[in-house]
Amino acid sequence: MYPLTPSDYARPFLTWQRIADWAQKHYRSRTFSKDERIPVRTGLLYLVERGAVRLVSDAHVIASQRSQEPSESLAEAANEEAFLGFVGAGQPFEIIAQSPFALQSYAHVDQTSVLWMYWQDLDNWPHFRREVLDAFRYQHQRKLLWLSTLGQRRTIDRLLGFLILLIEEFGQPYEGGYYLPWSLTHAQIGSAIGSTRVTVTRLMGKLRQQGLIRLYKDGLLAIPADIVQQQQA
Amino acid sequence: MYPLTPSDYARPFLTWQRIADWAQKHYRSRTFSKDERIPVRTGLLYLVERGAVRLVSDAHVIASQRSQEPSESLAEAANEEAFLGFVGAGQPFEIIAQSPFALQSYAHVDQTSVLWMYWQDLDNWPHFRREVLDAFRYQHQRKLLWLSTLGQRRTIDRLLGFLILLIEEFGQPYEGGYYLPWSLTHAQIGSAIGSTRVTVTRLMGKLRQQGLIRLYKDGLLAIPADIVQQQQA
Repeated sequence: MYPLTPSDYARPFLTWQRIADWAQKHYRSRTFSKDERIPVRTGLLYLVERGAVRLVSDAHVIASQRSQEPSESLAEAANEEAFLGFVGAGQPFEIIAQSPFALQSYAHVDQTSVLWMYWQDLDNWPHFRREVLDAFRYQHQRKLLWLSTLGQRRTIDRLLGFLILLIEEFGQPYEGGYYLPWSLTHAQIGSAIGSTRVTVTRLMGKLRQQGLIRLYKDGLLAIPADIVQQQQA
Repeated sequence: MYPLTPSDYARPFLTWQRIADWAQKHYRSRTFSKDERIPVRTGLLYLVERGAVRLVSDAHVIASQRSQEPSESLAEAANEEAFLGFVGAGQPFEIIAQSPFALQSYAHVDQTSVLWMYWQDLDNWPHFRREVLDAFRYQHQRKLLWLSTLGQRRTIDRLLGFLILLIEEFGQPYEGGYYLPWSLTHAQIGSAIGSTRVTVTRLMGKLRQQGLIRLYKDGLLAIPADIVQQQQA
């Protein structure tokens, strides 16, 4: 879909096949099953060859741990894992910064294939290096938009903004609009927008009633075409 | 400060003086007063020469506008502006994506000086181009950490995580720890973490009582050194 994405940033990597062959030959490629953790090292560059990667973080929640309020479960707080977005096929990712949140990556779907290289390896492919850096520029801008939606006070606004941004970036067209090709649990959505599974379920019902979101096939999230167009106006 | 920043990403731009001279000569440099809007065009690259830039977004809040709940003021919702972060001296910024949130930039302090160029201009300085792109990689990672903190359910955790991240990145050392060299209103903080000015004021009091944050001089935000070290551990 990418209705709002400059075509410059959505283009596939030109030298992709050459890179994939190189990675295969140098044992720098591996396939993961759904929800398997992808081990990631600082200083390496990763590329999603097939499937989709889910970025998450483990938050160390120190304020409420210290406050010791009886209503707050420490065990629950300590395990809070935030969904930070997808990395689709053809896209790069890396993990540099670590503290106070540990960033991690998981295969979001079965048969997710990832290859990796040192940044120096890219010296052999200067044009590709530029495309990778442009892809990071684009991802950075998307995260600014994401931060914009999370700055909103009302959870329903954060939720709708979040869903629109995700489907804008990764959505596939169908007769009723655009759908997100991967499933996302209400708990995962809640972890991204600072809310709970229960609240997300309730607000999703409200958004569906208002016709702002839809479900496609087996419960995939979808947005009517006119909602996206309204956003573009 | 940058206690958690790889030195690779915190280094000043080597060819900075040459770029600044070039910008001066080609009338690509301008100084702004505090809170003056910096006009930014898609496709151009901006560099902060002096001072600090504040990135914000205007959210188009469509879900709660449609819901027409009496408790929600439409005028207020329509003007919701989210604080998205600072760009400090020596750092680049750009604005590509626009919808559904309009990103904008303001001078955060007086005498903020910004220069700009086309991306093609960087072809003359390939090494500098690489540093700019590495700076964007670093900014992207910081935004992932920021998203991590905003995924937390409790506002006090989002608030403390937000303050720690800001001070980690921009803080200056003093005898009591590290302080943020620029002021930030409680309303601006609220707009970043999905909360209100009133709630931020209340929770800041709580964090100060717990010794997790401090005030430096005329109300600048500060964090004791041991809190930062605890986060690094």
